[in-house]
Amino acid sequence: MNRTEALRKIAFEKDKIGGLLVFNSTNLTWLIGFCGASALLIPKNGESIVYVHGVNHAQAEAELSGFSVELVKQGENMMGKIAKQVSALQIKSLAADALNVESWRALSKLLGSKTLEVDNRFLQEFRKVKDENEIKLMRRAGELTSEGMRVAREIMAAGVKECEVAAEIEYAMRKQGSSGTAFETIVASGLGSAFPHGGCSEKEIREGDLVVIDVGATYKFYRSDMTRTFVAGKPSGKQKKLYEVVRAAQEKAVEVMKPNVKAKDVDAAARKVIADEGYGKYFVHGLGHGVGLDIHEPPTLSPASEDVLAASNVVTVEPGIYLVGYGGVRIEDTVLVQRNGTEKLTNGAYGLGKE
Amino acid sequence: MNRTEALRKIAFEKDKIGGLLVFNSTNLTWLIGFCGASALLIPKNGESIVYVHGVNHAQAEAELSGFSVELVKQGENMMGKIAKQVSALQIKSLAADALNVESWRALSKLLGSKTLEVDNRFLQEFRKVKDENEIKLMRRAGELTSEGMRVAREIMAAGVKECEVAAEIEYAMRKQGSSGTAFETIVASGLGSAFPHGGCSEKEIREGDLVVIDVGATYKFYRSDMTRTFVAGKPSGKQKKLYEVVRAAQEKAVEVMKPNVKAKDVDAAARKVIADEGYGKYFVHGLGHGVGLDIHEPPTLSPASEDVLAASNVVTVEPGIYLVGYGGVRIEDTVLVQRNGTEKLTNGAYGLGKE
Repeated sequence: MNRTEALRKIAFEKDKIGGLLVFNSTNLTWLIGFCGASALLIPKNGESIVYVHGVNHAQAEAELSGFSVELVKQGENMMGKIAKQVSALQIKSLAADALNVESWRALSKLLGSKTLEVDNRFLQEFRKVKDENEIKLMRRAGELTSEGMRVAREIMAAGVKECEVAAEIEYAMRKQGSSGTAFETIVASGLGSAFPHGGCSEKEIREGDLVVIDVGATYKFYRSDMTRTFVAGKPSGKQKKLYEVVRAAQEKAVEVMKPNVKAKDVDAAARKVIADEGYGKYFVHGLGHGVGLDIHEPPTLSPASEDVLAASNVVTVEPGIYLVGYGGVRIEDTVLVQRNGTEKLTNGAYGLGKE
Repeated sequence: MNRTEALRKIAFEKDKIGGLLVFNSTNLTWLIGFCGASALLIPKNGESIVYVHGVNHAQAEAELSGFSVELVKQGENMMGKIAKQVSALQIKSLAADALNVESWRALSKLLGSKTLEVDNRFLQEFRKVKDENEIKLMRRAGELTSEGMRVAREIMAAGVKECEVAAEIEYAMRKQGSSGTAFETIVASGLGSAFPHGGCSEKEIREGDLVVIDVGATYKFYRSDMTRTFVAGKPSGKQKKLYEVVRAAQEKAVEVMKPNVKAKDVDAAARKVIADEGYGKYFVHGLGHGVGLDIHEPPTLSPASEDVLAASNVVTVEPGIYLVGYGGVRIEDTVLVQRNGTEKLTNGAYGLGKE
């Protein structure tokens, strides 16, 4: 309710629109605190209307307050209902957060001469800065994730299957209160660790393998993201070297993070540490991404990013070196930007030979 | 590779287009058997081109054959690369499977006078009919799901938390080879069971509660979906009655399912059983949905559906009765349509007082 009001103030001051339409499911969850809605119409004046299909209607009636809840009956055209309401409220121009081409065409046709802009950025900009309650939930998601990684660290060993490690991590997080994984768990060993998304198979971890483990818990819709790299057995000199370079890159990045720093400069700081050691071209992805209700959301830490960090952004910091035919190393934490620095929301469970 | 060729034959015979563009991630996985691609350009003549960002590029090079793999570098505009390639191939008109308004506008601008249609249906139509290999994978996903439900059936009891049941189900599925859940597990007890998506909380199941458990495993990208309803303790007469009505509705629906039957008629058959017992208005959702790489995909079993069943469709059949303030019952299986009837891909683990 407060978020809808805050959005209303800014959206209707800046633009000459008479209504906002929200369709994206995480935007909806963020605005109304309920994850079963299909759409939200926020008129410039008057009560906001939540559109809910039959399957979630009773739950919406029970859980939502401060909104008018409109049932979309079976076979009923939701876009038609929305267009009718827009006419009844005499709204002449609208902005929507997200639509695919087909839905946009259908709705535009129904709206006739009324204008319909589509721009997902205005809500993303809002969601980039987390409030106190969101930070509390994300701290919890981070703790659950770190707990999962501690279990991974314990059981990861030669002879254990990748998917067995994933099973134990997910079970531990669930038992502690995670409501599911934030993304598909990665346990990538040996040559597979050289692929950043080298999934999780029935392959047994072998002695000497690099093992990249990337996991995330979810707590009350908020996600977290953490990677550690281990070696099954005694790490070689080269494995240790790669690990130290990646760890130094992550430390450097976290060190320079604070409000008003350009996201691409944070990426560059980490990238320089890796490049200086001659591994620049093996760091094949951006340094990190925002996390919140979505596992990937703004701001983005990458060479091409135009984002500037602000207090209460939450981003991953995940440098890596990937040597195809050899193996990979990645170290990642979910990090909260604070007024004077940072706070890691994922912690501990450090890797390689388990130090 | 074969799917791309099959698609090419049909798409370029029917329409006068010179190229197909695929952006939807499950469509991409279905076509190329790799889940880390960003786009696919299928020209009328010549080799198809897979666009892959740096993070997945090495893996694509290792795992993909029969396609040209194009690296999208950090900061590089993928749509620009595609538009350039379209010009080089002298393609004048294109069809894309799925784009949001903003991407569609950006690409259209880059394509200039070339036409760009957007229509997700042509690929959905293909994917509705599963081939032998897909059916094999979906059988395995169904077995894993049924295994999870058997564990749920064993441990579900008064005093156990909803989320603990979820943890045990997911752990069992994972240990057997599931690569993660097909959707967020639902364990909804007591009054919460009256909400079809009444999630999974830290609430303890109480004696006499109806408990709706809805789970799905994933096997090599293919999903499954299954619901059983239990009672913690001895079921009451009313609980038994609701259960029998829902079970009869599911049986009736499965009985009428075969190729060339209208999907809405299958829905109607189940709905009639429930309505005849006076619970019609408490069956608040459609009877089912297609399953495959996506947990919800065509065909849809609902009163408004225009789908007609065909051999090798895979759909859920999930009638339910939801009494707000009392509780709910749903029974669901994932069902394969065969030439002469059906095959349930999820099985057993029947519910209520555990029979």
